[in-house]
Amino acid sequence: MIKVAVLGATGMVGQRFIQLLANHEFFELSDLAASPRSAGKPYYKAAKWYLDSEIPENIKDMIVKEIDPKKIDAEVVFSALPSDVAKEVEPKFAEAGFIVASNASAYRMEEDVPLLIPEVNPEHLDLIEVQKKNRNWDGCIITNPNCTTIMAVLSLKPIYDNFGLEKVIITSMQALSGAGYSGVPSMAIVDNVIPFIKKEEEKVETEGLKILGKFDGERIVPAEFKVSASCNRVAVIDGHTEAIFVKTSKGATPEEIKKVMRDFEALPQKLKLPTAPEKPIIVREEEDRPQPRLDRDAGGGMSISVGRIRKDSIFDVKYITLGHNTIRGAAGASVLNAELLVKTKKI
Amino acid sequence: MIKVAVLGATGMVGQRFIQLLANHEFFELSDLAASPRSAGKPYYKAAKWYLDSEIPENIKDMIVKEIDPKKIDAEVVFSALPSDVAKEVEPKFAEAGFIVASNASAYRMEEDVPLLIPEVNPEHLDLIEVQKKNRNWDGCIITNPNCTTIMAVLSLKPIYDNFGLEKVIITSMQALSGAGYSGVPSMAIVDNVIPFIKKEEEKVETEGLKILGKFDGERIVPAEFKVSASCNRVAVIDGHTEAIFVKTSKGATPEEIKKVMRDFEALPQKLKLPTAPEKPIIVREEEDRPQPRLDRDAGGGMSISVGRIRKDSIFDVKYITLGHNTIRGAAGASVLNAELLVKTKKI
Amino acid sequence: MIKVAVLGATGMVGQRFIQLLANHEFFELSDLAASPRSAGKPYYKAAKWYLDSEIPENIKDMIVKEIDPKKIDAEVVFSALPSDVAKEVEPKFAEAGFIVASNASAYRMEEDVPLLIPEVNPEHLDLIEVQKKNRNWDGCIITNPNCTTIMAVLSLKPIYDNFGLEKVIITSMQALSGAGYSGVPSMAIVDNVIPFIKKEEEKVETEGLKILGKFDGERIVPAEFKVSASCNRVAVIDGHTEAIFVKTSKGATPEEIKKVMRDFEALPQKLKLPTAPEKPIIVREEEDRPQPRLDRDAGGGMSISVGRIRKDSIFDVKYITLGHNTIRGAAGASVLNAELLVKTKKI
Amino acid sequence: MIKVAVLGATGMVGQRFIQLLANHEFFELSDLAASPRSAGKPYYKAAKWYLDSEIPENIKDMIVKEIDPKKIDAEVVFSALPSDVAKEVEPKFAEAGFIVASNASAYRMEEDVPLLIPEVNPEHLDLIEVQKKNRNWDGCIITNPNCTTIMAVLSLKPIYDNFGLEKVIITSMQALSGAGYSGVPSMAIVDNVIPFIKKEEEKVETEGLKILGKFDGERIVPAEFKVSASCNRVAVIDGHTEAIFVKTSKGATPEEIKKVMRDFEALPQKLKLPTAPEKPIIVREEEDRPQPRLDRDAGGGMSISVGRIRKDSIFDVKYITLGHNTIRGAAGASVLNAELLVKTKKI
Repeated sequence: MIKVAVLGATGMVGQRFIQLLANHEFFELSDLAASPRSAGKPYYKAAKWYLDSEIPENIKDMIVKEIDPKKIDAEVVFSALPSDVAKEVEPKFAEAGFIVASNASAYRMEEDVPLLIPEVNPEHLDLIEVQKKNRNWDGCIITNPNCTTIMAVLSLKPIYDNFGLEKVIITSMQALSGAGYSGVPSMAIVDNVIPFIKKEEEKVETEGLKILGKFDGERIVPAEFKVSASCNRVAVIDGHTEAIFVKTSKGATPEEIKKVMRDFEALPQKLKLPTAPEKPIIVREEEDRPQPRLDRDAGGGMSISVGRIRKDSIFDVKYITLGHNTIRGAAGASVLNAELLVKTKKI
Repeated sequence: MIKVAVLGATGMVGQRFIQLLANHEFFELSDLAASPRSAGKPYYKAAKWYLDSEIPENIKDMIVKEIDPKKIDAEVVFSALPSDVAKEVEPKFAEAGFIVASNASAYRMEEDVPLLIPEVNPEHLDLIEVQKKNRNWDGCIITNPNCTTIMAVLSLKPIYDNFGLEKVIITSMQALSGAGYSGVPSMAIVDNVIPFIKKEEEKVETEGLKILGKFDGERIVPAEFKVSASCNRVAVIDGHTEAIFVKTSKGATPEEIKKVMRDFEALPQKLKLPTAPEKPIIVREEEDRPQPRLDRDAGGGMSISVGRIRKDSIFDVKYITLGHNTIRGAAGASVLNAELLVKTKKI
Repeated sequence: MIKVAVLGATGMVGQRFIQLLANHEFFELSDLAASPRSAGKPYYKAAKWYLDSEIPENIKDMIVKEIDPKKIDAEVVFSALPSDVAKEVEPKFAEAGFIVASNASAYRMEEDVPLLIPEVNPEHLDLIEVQKKNRNWDGCIITNPNCTTIMAVLSLKPIYDNFGLEKVIITSMQALSGAGYSGVPSMAIVDNVIPFIKKEEEKVETEGLKILGKFDGERIVPAEFKVSASCNRVAVIDGHTEAIFVKTSKGATPEEIKKVMRDFEALPQKLKLPTAPEKPIIVREEEDRPQPRLDRDAGGGMSISVGRIRKDSIFDVKYITLGHNTIRGAAGASVLNAELLVKTKKI
Repeated sequence: MIKVAVLGATGMVGQRFIQLLANHEFFELSDLAASPRSAGKPYYKAAKWYLDSEIPENIKDMIVKEIDPKKIDAEVVFSALPSDVAKEVEPKFAEAGFIVASNASAYRMEEDVPLLIPEVNPEHLDLIEVQKKNRNWDGCIITNPNCTTIMAVLSLKPIYDNFGLEKVIITSMQALSGAGYSGVPSMAIVDNVIPFIKKEEEKVETEGLKILGKFDGERIVPAEFKVSASCNRVAVIDGHTEAIFVKTSKGATPEEIKKVMRDFEALPQKLKLPTAPEKPIIVREEEDRPQPRLDRDAGGGMSISVGRIRKDSIFDVKYITLGHNTIRGAAGASVLNAELLVKTKKI
């Protein structure tokens, strides 16, 4: 068993980390850390638990520690920190020899930091060697993409591999949990849509190109298609829904797209990583699916569901993709990254 | 005063018609008609009034009639009928000499039927002469577009006129009222999005080309750009929100687009038609507007609000458009059509 | 294994029955029956599956049968039928020798029909003998209470046993699923409360007295306290919340009430019935719990959660009770009834 | 015209004050004040306007001032301050000679401060003389009750006058706006109910007794019936709904209760105060009204709507009352208080 800790353990993504790690096959959750406001308290007092299960028994009374490498007893730390805190703190952990599996955006686009979806670009893990050399670190930082990026890029991967990509237009309808527990006031969203999410479109438009890029031994050469996004908040608890319009390089019919999505196989499934869903992409044939309340928990929240794959009169195809934003799009993504690292690098 | 009647007076669009016509400058609401289930009853018993105002006093006790040209005393009938009923009934009214201002989709795409947005294509009214001749009718049918089409096409009009259009991609987040009072069960939409609306995308992809087409004296020559749509239902009472990506013919910057939208002037405003809003298009500069709950009632529900006009990396610009789907997108649209006809043709 | 069937298998309660019975320790789900519209179709085509899990694999292709005792191969039938259909059909099944475990209201208040909550009045099962004799049936009908009644009466049971009851005032905030999938239009409930549920208050005000009544060998002598209810619908998918004010006979403090609820033990738990939750009543100490989204699934949806137990200045105590209305309040209630019958009567 | 100012002008109640005062018959809105964060900015920059109308033109560019009696040019100040700030600041304004019409709870229960509903206890205004003498102030503080109290007590007033009151049990389902714009996170309330509102039940249980008490020339002798409340938050934007159970002193039938509510006349209506609704109490006969989305705006948000008046088996009657919590329950209440003072005391 490998000892792991969660940084930012009291927030919503932190709670999902705890849920996923409480009884993990590889990992033993040995420490929780959070802001000074929470440090020193037993976890059940520090966190307002918002999930519809109870706090795991073995976690409830753990004393929350400060976010300080010297106080944490673990090999891997999972970071659910806000971006500005992550920016400052994560390098300190990496320098101190920890593997940092981060959900924060702070280092995602750094040249020598892997931005991973284990089903999509596991080979980018090799960038760790470059990173360690560059920065003279004993540990390292690996990151997962933005939640909206993940649902899109995972669905695009088999298309990219088989038909190439030229243009991708994405309009998202994103869940409330993506903004954190207090992020969206109810007064702002009941009977409403907010057609804006700060810095989200920029992330969606750039991260995918890095993820689908090629590692040339030194750096990632980004993929060359174009992405444009329009991001919206809707009154849904969990589960991001995205309407995607795709122009491929070679041309592709809806049936061809369905086939390559259905046939899609990936490394985490072959390695039987504990958090890997049986099917990373579930293709649905109903005329009105996927829907967040019905499909977000597919594959334990780690599968994405794709539906309404149909011909597009301007590009080639259009479809709907959906996934659980705090599991596949955040905590589960980081845990899967760490599992991949453990299994392939034998740390 | 011109006598008018509402067909399909008990449903949601029917109620909006009554609200708009109860104290109208040109029109006197002389008759209400609805299905046999309602006929013969006083209106307040026949209709489950769902608006947040009371039934107008002068309407409450009117006896609902059958949908039969012989029983209706009016010059203009407003049709809020379901499409299949409209298909059968509207020609009978037109034949019997009524002007039918219809919100139904049944005849929108017929070659000799005007599909009107008074701010966009008032000259298409001349198609009435062709229609009357073709069909040997004393009356006529004029129609307004689908609610999602209207918010898009009204925003596209000044772009089309100034820069031309090549490609338009639209993802809608549509309100519940668009499906009728019982159209969307609450179990289907609370904490959810439904990424499908029956026959909606087809309407949005075709109607705009007719509306922006040219009347050549005989028929409408459709505009030649392409439209692709992905239509979604969200938990909003009234107000359709649409994320639009636009490729113009000549190229245009966000600032140029804002300017032509702001400067947009149209015939209904010049004619001071009673239902015409002061500004058909309101351009907003806040980073997170328009929003349905805050902006749907702008201009008495007859203005559309456009915001987040910004550069698009694939096409030229992307923006959000929003309007009240049962006022500007349905009953108000039909009433404005009839006002235009009255004022310009002096019926 | 005992063969069982579900009548009314396509609706929401029917789906919950299937979910609970698909892999049951005592029961083998051998037949599904529904209205003529569904009969003859494979289940996955007949039902619009609304739960956030998939249709169980072994059920998907079962052919739905007509609701006819001659066509059903089972010992026990679970009835999720609408009350008017149940009224006609359930006696036919009982006459034909089936045990009918019904969620319908049709026979709940009949003198010789047990109205059961297995944790509350398991001894009322003995009424079956009276019923069989009275009606000359080989089979029988056993029923579970209305969903709102259950959450109240289960919480009242330890109070009644220890302190007696004089007056109970209940205001409910009920979930949408209680009205069936299409029961509450979204237009009726988004940004709204409906302070009325047809025939609900009458049920809540009478059923509890029968359940807490005494079986004297011939009939149930109803309990003698008074119940008054005000029932409301709110925009919650599953989980009824109830504010309850209680006057006991002997007087009781909040601490005494908490203690008797915490110490409450019942027969289903002792018998380890498969659907019995470990704790039928969970007492919560947080100032703002129970809440439907967080607590409805406690004990697999079979526990009720009680919180905010506090002194009342008019009666003795007031508190909040909450439970899952389609599990503990419907399908799970019927299944638990049948399990009790099987285990105690050794059918 | 009397000059008035709003303290706490940027919050939700502050915005409602501005909406009500922008074109007032008696009052000229001459100053806005808010916290240091807002002071010095033009109003449209200081406030995130959340109402579905635009900021009034004459208000938009007003510079927000500090909350300091020396900086405010007005005769009356309306206070929408948080309770702790109000506690400190309001006496300074009163001392400096301002009439403070406060929506804050800080001074409501002080012995010499009138707690007013102008339709219910206008005679309590005379307490101002006692207050001025006690405190040696040139100005004074008058207050309006908590929003939940108002909807209950206004409905109880004609019952109290005609039949006396013994016991009142209230369960509220309260709107989100009552907690302020950021008070309830959407994650807390979508698909949920929160059965707790901090300090709310205490207010509801005490304020009504003071309001319905008698002024004996020196102090208010509180009314002697008992009130018990259970307060809940539901996913409604505006409009508190309350289920009320009432035991009168003399006994009363539902028909008698309806009659005295319908016949209820009060001073603000006789004086034709600008903000007084034509009917303070609207009695509805539909089986499922009042409902917040449909009835909150009745009488410009100043009428309460009462429905489902029916026999109660434990007390005498039970019914539903509903009103707009930020208009009748907050800003409108304070404005009406000030109007009453102006008209009757001729300030």
